[in-house]
Amino acid sequence: MPTAWIETPCPAPSARHEAAARARQAALTKPPGSLGVLETLAVTLAALQATDRPRAAHAPVILFAGDHGVAAKGVSAYPASVTVEMLRNFASGGAAVAVLARELGVPLTVVDAGTLATEPIAGTVVDKPRCGTRDFTVEPAMTDGELAAALAAGRRAVAAAGPADLVLFGEMGIGNTTSAAAVAAALLGTAPADIAGAGTGLDAEGIARKVAVIEAGLARHGLDASSDPRRILAAVGGLEIAALAGAIVAAAQVGRPVLVDGFIVTVAALAATRLNPGCIPWLIYSHRSAERGHAHVLAALGARPVLDLNLRLGEGSGAAAALAVLRLACALHNGMATFEEAAVSGRTTP
Amino acid sequence: MPTAWIETPCPAPSARHEAAARARQAALTKPPGSLGVLETLAVTLAALQATDRPRAAHAPVILFAGDHGVAAKGVSAYPASVTVEMLRNFASGGAAVAVLARELGVPLTVVDAGTLATEPIAGTVVDKPRCGTRDFTVEPAMTDGELAAALAAGRRAVAAAGPADLVLFGEMGIGNTTSAAAVAAALLGTAPADIAGAGTGLDAEGIARKVAVIEAGLARHGLDASSDPRRILAAVGGLEIAALAGAIVAAAQVGRPVLVDGFIVTVAALAATRLNPGCIPWLIYSHRSAERGHAHVLAALGARPVLDLNLRLGEGSGAAAALAVLRLACALHNGMATFEEAAVSGRTTP
Repeated sequence: MPTAWIETPCPAPSARHEAAARARQAALTKPPGSLGVLETLAVTLAALQATDRPRAAHAPVILFAGDHGVAAKGVSAYPASVTVEMLRNFASGGAAVAVLARELGVPLTVVDAGTLATEPIAGTVVDKPRCGTRDFTVEPAMTDGELAAALAAGRRAVAAAGPADLVLFGEMGIGNTTSAAAVAAALLGTAPADIAGAGTGLDAEGIARKVAVIEAGLARHGLDASSDPRRILAAVGGLEIAALAGAIVAAAQVGRPVLVDGFIVTVAALAATRLNPGCIPWLIYSHRSAERGHAHVLAALGARPVLDLNLRLGEGSGAAAALAVLRLACALHNGMATFEEAAVSGRTTP
Repeated sequence: MPTAWIETPCPAPSARHEAAARARQAALTKPPGSLGVLETLAVTLAALQATDRPRAAHAPVILFAGDHGVAAKGVSAYPASVTVEMLRNFASGGAAVAVLARELGVPLTVVDAGTLATEPIAGTVVDKPRCGTRDFTVEPAMTDGELAAALAAGRRAVAAAGPADLVLFGEMGIGNTTSAAAVAAALLGTAPADIAGAGTGLDAEGIARKVAVIEAGLARHGLDASSDPRRILAAVGGLEIAALAGAIVAAAQVGRPVLVDGFIVTVAALAATRLNPGCIPWLIYSHRSAERGHAHVLAALGARPVLDLNLRLGEGSGAAAALAVLRLACALHNGMATFEEAAVSGRTTP
């Protein structure tokens, strides 16, 4: 079976380095716990990187783009042509995540995992089994073979990025909040109306149409929480969503921490945890998106995101913003003096 | 009167540049509003800096330290000697805010605005009317003259820092959550039990003692929401808190945006807005602290902080963390392509 690799076990985080990092945090010149999330992020990274000096310096961003047959059903505020137009904008550096990657000094790789582009866009990697998914209200979005190819495209992108302190994933695809919401609704057994949101900016009527499209897709393919996650991804998913799920599992398998972006990437992460639960500890959640369904998916994953900036762009923009905070967490962990080093008096109990 | 300068008007933000910044955000290649707080921060900075290209590059951190007579009442988990010990730790680069300033490439100035140090600590600026405040349960923390000197110390520190894109303020002082809570309780007319928190890590018994100390101070000096803010600061405030209030007003008066840190600095900001309401637009709130009273003070100021990382250290650490986000907001505003520049299709109404 072409996706057998996805069940290869992921390594466990280092309990020894986690304990050492906790002990160091307790010895640094501050009241214990007073750096809050900045402490827990450093401890988590130390455990995942199996190091005494966690790092978030080399953190490539990999963005997967795809188009969606269901976009023909009027589920986005923008035309499907925008996906390919944005590929060019990523490559030329004008898109949000491209600006952020430049500012943070990290490389951005853009993978066309299934857009409608019929020719390669300069500055992007093409790794797609087809141009766009099929309309899932009519037929499965992709075949089993196409799903396997998309999962493997994610794995290939992670391998191509090479060693890194952690990896950030982003996405682009007009219609992909609809596909992601369909996948989430099926995986969680949640009503589409509780997951589907405004996406790029639908009004109430547009959201109602989106809910109806998702309900039709789930009914058409007989999907519910008991369905195999592969079947859910193939029936109502997206090529970039499948590539993300494959990339997340592949990153965890090689012991690379993953900084999860917003709604779409979190849904892909949820699918990844169903495909290989060993990836769960490798996921760090960057932000709470303004997209309606994100809270549900985060809750299902037990996630406590770093940021809450009312973002709803995707692209990996929220993960990039969180990277700046992770870097500060590492700097504090590695650079602060201990009470002993600084000759600062410890706690008294008043 | 020696504090007459504090009533000098603050300039108004530039409505023209705010409108231009909003228009630019609407033209950038993303759904309108999809960068959430990153958009509003850029627009706010553009208005305050009266520019088309907001910047958060040069952002000095000024930390004011002071000791508190009321610390003798057992209101902190740490001995008062820690304030001076931490001055050395700031100067030698081992404290959290020193690490953050280094990582962010911004200068850190440490002002001894009233610690118990009897000799200058190398690497710090000494500008204090006295060594530590008096115990406010017994007598006013400082005289009117000492208050005026502390307010002016804040102004001098801002002037010494020179031109900047914005300025970050921090603080250190064993016992200063007690003084700050007393100031906030008086200014807001709120019960001390609703403001006083764990500070550096008090248990329930310690917090109860802290509440009683604050109640005693407010009663001793007959303070309530109708009291003059100067009288409140002098009676139960701290020298570093007064210096912060003076610095905040002075920064606003010279048109410099202020990135407010956690509980103590926010209380100083509240006092500053009472001393000179013209400073209100110049305040950007960096984070929501885990310290109990912060939420009340933020609510009174109508503040929506950038981060919520469960921090409760002070020093300016939360402001420094938020600076990293502000820089990304500026990079996006200045660096993203417009729909026209990138030839990306605009919104359709589905």
